Amino acid sequence: MKNNLNLAFDKLGGLVPVIVQDAVSHEVLMLAFMNEEAWRRTLETGEAHYYSRSRRQLWHKGATSGHVQRVQEILVDCDADTILLRVEQVGGAACHTGYRSCFYRRLTADGLEVIGVRIFDPKEVYGSG
Amino acid sequence: MKNNLNLAFDKLGGLVPVIVQDAVSHEVLMLAFMNEEAWRRTLETGEAHYYSRSRRQLWHKGATSGHVQRVQEILVDCDADTILLRVEQVGGAACHTGYRSCFYRRLTADGLEVIGVRIFDPKEVYGSG
Repeated sequence: MKNNLNLAFDKLGGLVPVIVQDAVSHEVLMLAFMNEEAWRRTLETGEAHYYSRSRRQLWHKGATSGHVQRVQEILVDCDADTILLRVEQVGGAACHTGYRSCFYRRLTADGLEVIGVRIFDPKEVYGSG
Repeated sequence: MKNNLNLAFDKLGGLVPVIVQDAVSHEVLMLAFMNEEAWRRTLETGEAHYYSRSRRQLWHKGATSGHVQRVQEILVDCDADTILLRVEQVGGAACHTGYRSCFYRRLTADGLEVIGVRIFDPKEVYGSG
């Protein structure tokens, strides 16, 4: 896809927040960040690339697990400072914990309650080491 | 609601990104940020409070327009560094442009295409001044 959009990377130190939804169910899967390189690579390849804040480098989601995200649709917010990606999540789970969505817990008066669906065991996908 | 969750406010200079969904349709309405005060005020009042990065102050969403967000459910991500709020959006529109969702535009090869639903005319809600 052409890069015909000027995103406001300056508001957050070179990063733009990206909300990731399942393209079919529209379930919110995760939130990540893109820098300009990740945005360009996502448009070029059709697979979601992010900027890993912990590793401080480009992150091709699924490069390790094979669970890539194939971009189906890109929405932009009113200020062009946030992206909403609709993706086909290969493997069915976006979260490194094995849950379909990173938002698998709900806040209750008694603490956090797990409400998400676990798709895989992280040990089997990433190894036990 | 009790504040029984330690959110990772340190990762983004005191802020946590908040994805806001309609509680019934689960449509993604907007992305905003909370600082600790906004988080506490949200839990105390049951209405969404954010931190306005442009105005650099606490932002009680809807205080001007009356279009407050009544919090129905709070989800937390795997790293406790992002919040997903499910809200009742009073007035039906979350975006200051009058669209139901801030994500009312889709990226196409020819540019941005408006796909959202406009609920109100901003001039009538905020005044023409």
